[in-house]
Amino acid sequence: MAFGHQREDSRLILLREISQEGRIPRIDLAERTGISRATVTTITADLLRDGLIEEIPRVDGAATARGRPRVDLKIAGAAHLVAGVKVSGTRISLVLMNFEGTQLADHEAPLAAGRHSPDALAGHIGDAVAALVAKVGHATADLSGVGVGLAGTVDVGAGAVHWSPSLNVRNVDFAAVLTEQMGVPTYLDNDANLVAMAEKAFGLGRGRSDFIVVTLEAGVGMGIILGGEIYRGTRGCGAEFGHTKVQLEGALCRCGQRGCLEAYVAEYALLREADTALGTDTSVKNQIARLLEAAHAGDTAAASIVARAGRMFAMGLANIVNIFDPELIILAGEQMQFDYLYSDAVMAEMLKSIVQVDAAPPEVVIHKWGNLMWARGAAAYALEFVQERAAREGRIDAV
Amino acid sequence: MAFGHQREDSRLILLREISQEGRIPRIDLAERTGISRATVTTITADLLRDGLIEEIPRVDGAATARGRPRVDLKIAGAAHLVAGVKVSGTRISLVLMNFEGTQLADHEAPLAAGRHSPDALAGHIGDAVAALVAKVGHATADLSGVGVGLAGTVDVGAGAVHWSPSLNVRNVDFAAVLTEQMGVPTYLDNDANLVAMAEKAFGLGRGRSDFIVVTLEAGVGMGIILGGEIYRGTRGCGAEFGHTKVQLEGALCRCGQRGCLEAYVAEYALLREADTALGTDTSVKNQIARLLEAAHAGDTAAASIVARAGRMFAMGLANIVNIFDPELIILAGEQMQFDYLYSDAVMAEMLKSIVQVDAAPPEVVIHKWGNLMWARGAAAYALEFVQERAAREGRIDAV
Repeated sequence: MAFGHQREDSRLILLREISQEGRIPRIDLAERTGISRATVTTITADLLRDGLIEEIPRVDGAATARGRPRVDLKIAGAAHLVAGVKVSGTRISLVLMNFEGTQLADHEAPLAAGRHSPDALAGHIGDAVAALVAKVGHATADLSGVGVGLAGTVDVGAGAVHWSPSLNVRNVDFAAVLTEQMGVPTYLDNDANLVAMAEKAFGLGRGRSDFIVVTLEAGVGMGIILGGEIYRGTRGCGAEFGHTKVQLEGALCRCGQRGCLEAYVAEYALLREADTALGTDTSVKNQIARLLEAAHAGDTAAASIVARAGRMFAMGLANIVNIFDPELIILAGEQMQFDYLYSDAVMAEMLKSIVQVDAAPPEVVIHKWGNLMWARGAAAYALEFVQERAAREGRIDAV
Repeated sequence: MAFGHQREDSRLILLREISQEGRIPRIDLAERTGISRATVTTITADLLRDGLIEEIPRVDGAATARGRPRVDLKIAGAAHLVAGVKVSGTRISLVLMNFEGTQLADHEAPLAAGRHSPDALAGHIGDAVAALVAKVGHATADLSGVGVGLAGTVDVGAGAVHWSPSLNVRNVDFAAVLTEQMGVPTYLDNDANLVAMAEKAFGLGRGRSDFIVVTLEAGVGMGIILGGEIYRGTRGCGAEFGHTKVQLEGALCRCGQRGCLEAYVAEYALLREADTALGTDTSVKNQIARLLEAAHAGDTAAASIVARAGRMFAMGLANIVNIFDPELIILAGEQMQFDYLYSDAVMAEMLKSIVQVDAAPPEVVIHKWGNLMWARGAAAYALEFVQERAAREGRIDAV
């Protein structure tokens, strides 16, 4: 079923409002959206008939003049299922979400380290998605959409991955490969954008329209939320915080350029200097732990490595503040080992390097979370597209 | 006269559409704005009665079935007058604009170098505005609004100037001081924002919704246009490109911090190194000219000063690209002496430092213009507020 343009828009506006509020009386919908009561009545009847929303008795037990219980509207959770997927260096993390945004299951699958062909990676993701939905007795075909977050440079409009550490080719329309593989519409984005999306949907950015998320994993990522939307730039390669330059002709970065922030603060950057200070240790985790211990114990070389990373990170953050003047910066990461970058000393250094005005500096909060939160962001991302399609087409089925 | 909310909104939407199109048939207004034909007819009748718009015969001489000439609608230029003011180090530059955006007069007044008290600076601005309007037989009281651009950190929402090189106090509500002084509503903004506004209204950013303007004068400024609007940040101190750090513990900046981009590329930065290379010359203009000549003639020290400034500028620009991934960057400045920063070598260096994807890099264009263009931006800024007030109140008078 298809609707006229204006009708579609009103359906989406009402769906989103109901979704945002959780439960809401019909009469409030008209008030909040500016859509007339008559139109709200017609469209909510359609949405009920399509099974996209449902009525539930008012919590306070209020009744109408005729004695019937008053009802609120809510999203019908069972209307659609979406999966969210986060691909990291050695793992695929997934969550299953219903149309209400309730998490029904999660799953983690190992992934061989290194780069994969698009078909091979799509195969691994497809297997993991099948395992996820099987946990609650479903099949992949029951999904209405899959959101996938990947490290790298993703042009969302074109569906293209310019480059990703997980793929062995450049410029591949990986969204199309995944859609083909699973038979379900797949929505791809840079993983830091999906963390920003998760912070907005159910994290520390809830109710905020403008904030910045900086992520620390193997690399340094950034998600920018402006006016409630992810800011992507024109070619899908904005928000490359890790590759902003903090030193002219500085340290060599994995990207091939010199002086990138990542080349000072990422794991590999610390490791190559740690080898110089402490001798080689083949285990990444051990060597980072040894470095931080040595720095803490007062080893001069180790301390200078860690201190420099912290100061470069502070300088990069200060630049973000000087450009965006944000209300809130969320430092999001899974790995406790980056504590030294989130230290009070680094925050103090950052505050010294921002433009000084007589107003409170931006709030900087640290949010440590696991891969499943990234996956929830991916699911929330897919949910937005599924809502749009549902508003446009009425009841929708997986392709 | 005041109107209901929805009516106000429709009046403003129609005024803006007519203003943007220059001249437009009534019927196209309904089509473009989605406002019903009946409402367009009622509101345009109101706008005609209020003298805010007028009818003019269609250029092609088309007539109705009854033989009356077909008419277009246009903004009534005479409805309102606004002034735009740009305050620079030693000058006040002004333009007078009618409600259509047509420039009626311009004026430049000298300003003593250095910092002024808010009252003294407001007095100088007031005198210059009076001289401007007198050129076409008007008085300051005939103005409906004045837009003023100032270097420094301006919190537009609060009307406060956190800091400006033109003022001897911090945190002053300078918009209120100016409004009081002239008896005309005055709208204040950072001068780089007003250049961005001018580029959007009648410059190289016309028809573009997302672009960045970098300005080079005594300092380095930036204006960010996102979604057609100036991006301001939460405290009015975003877009401080000149104070992004390009070197940890680097050269001392006028702001008191170290390593700011300005501390490498601004006039004062070059001068202090020029003195070392070439000996002191008391004239700023002479010394900069001597430096550039010496660099061109192959003097090693002079060449290294100029080259470093160019490379630091390239690094700063690359960081902007890596963060915003813009479609377009406009380098705007009045002073030909900054040619070395706009050189092909600097642009090539910038392109080497941006994240490499298989898509065309952003377009970088150089737009040299004088202080009067900045003043036009200030007038366009004031015009937006006057349009809003006119939509709300019908015919408006100066306060």
